[in-house]
Amino acid sequence: MQYSSRHLEDLVREIARLPGIGTKTAQRLAFHLLRVPADEALRLARAIEQVRTGVGVCSICGNIAETQPCHLCADPKRDDTQLCIVEEPSDVIVLERTGHFRGRYHVLRGALSPADGVGPEQLHLRELIERVRSGGVEEVIVATNPTTAGEATAHAIRDLLATLPVRVTRIARGVPVGSDLELADQVTLTRALEGRKEFDEPGGG
Amino acid sequence: MQYSSRHLEDLVREIARLPGIGTKTAQRLAFHLLRVPADEALRLARAIEQVRTGVGVCSICGNIAETQPCHLCADPKRDDTQLCIVEEPSDVIVLERTGHFRGRYHVLRGALSPADGVGPEQLHLRELIERVRSGGVEEVIVATNPTTAGEATAHAIRDLLATLPVRVTRIARGVPVGSDLELADQVTLTRALEGRKEFDEPGGG
Repeated sequence: MQYSSRHLEDLVREIARLPGIGTKTAQRLAFHLLRVPADEALRLARAIEQVRTGVGVCSICGNIAETQPCHLCADPKRDDTQLCIVEEPSDVIVLERTGHFRGRYHVLRGALSPADGVGPEQLHLRELIERVRSGGVEEVIVATNPTTAGEATAHAIRDLLATLPVRVTRIARGVPVGSDLELADQVTLTRALEGRKEFDEPGGG
Repeated sequence: MQYSSRHLEDLVREIARLPGIGTKTAQRLAFHLLRVPADEALRLARAIEQVRTGVGVCSICGNIAETQPCHLCADPKRDDTQLCIVEEPSDVIVLERTGHFRGRYHVLRGALSPADGVGPEQLHLRELIERVRSGGVEEVIVATNPTTAGEATAHAIRDLLATLPVRVTRIARGVPVGSDLELADQVTLTRALEGRKEFDEPGGG
């Protein structure tokens, strides 16, 4: 036995399953969990259990939720006329952090990627159409990732909603604020040029 | 609430407590654990629990153990005349991987570091002296890390054992100074074992 303890061996193997964690890091983390006070290690174990038993999916927006509907769908102060479409729950978090969007969200749970077996039926697209059809939404803001899959998903959404009386917009793609032009790739720079605005327009200088 | 789920927030916080894991990585890992099949996530939780409930410390060598004594102390085929002193259980693993040491181990559970409040009484040094005094050990191989704390510990061990009829050697500095045993490759560790020297020889302590 490599680790003089089967339990330790199990733990290293399970930690090494996590994305971006190699065997050496897994071993280091396992020994750390063995060394810290037991309640600190057990708090992590319980947190994992609770996230899998106490966290569900909001029946309206598809975001992770502990209540039905989630606190964002239930919030009466948010704007029902704007609906922001994102790929993952983590995207809701980063958008909420900006504090600049007060509408509702719709979480697709992925992006179109036929090579990975993700077609329209794997995403929460039917729910999106039903939501828009049921009325009240004036603008759908597509905030899928600026990747091949995200762009393909954005175009699919535009097509799906084409016949509905709703404005469909896409978040601007350009050079990231605080970055250098020379760090931007050519596609980003091309999009930034294409998306240029007058200084007095929103999103302009 | 930042994460729309208190459980998710708890999980991110607990993962971020792990050494070398920042908040962004913790968030990525938490979402991963939320996305994978439940039994995969729960296997990790159970592995943490079991390592803290099922793993103890060997009463002889101080290594982690599921049995008393550990399988290395219980192995009748190992050489009782050689005793290798290491700082941590992880060091036993890397030395065992070389396959070049067939003696017994003694795990100090740390290294002398007065600045961090680690003095001789925090380490398993008394047990070491008792072990050597009880006879049978002909050579004590000090394999503490080639760091300031490890070297200080090595010298303290040499002084503690000076009056006992035992040869005290130090693994050769084939291991790069300033690094950890865990990071050394097997060939380097093998060379370090082969090149061990008396404390008063050139290249010794």
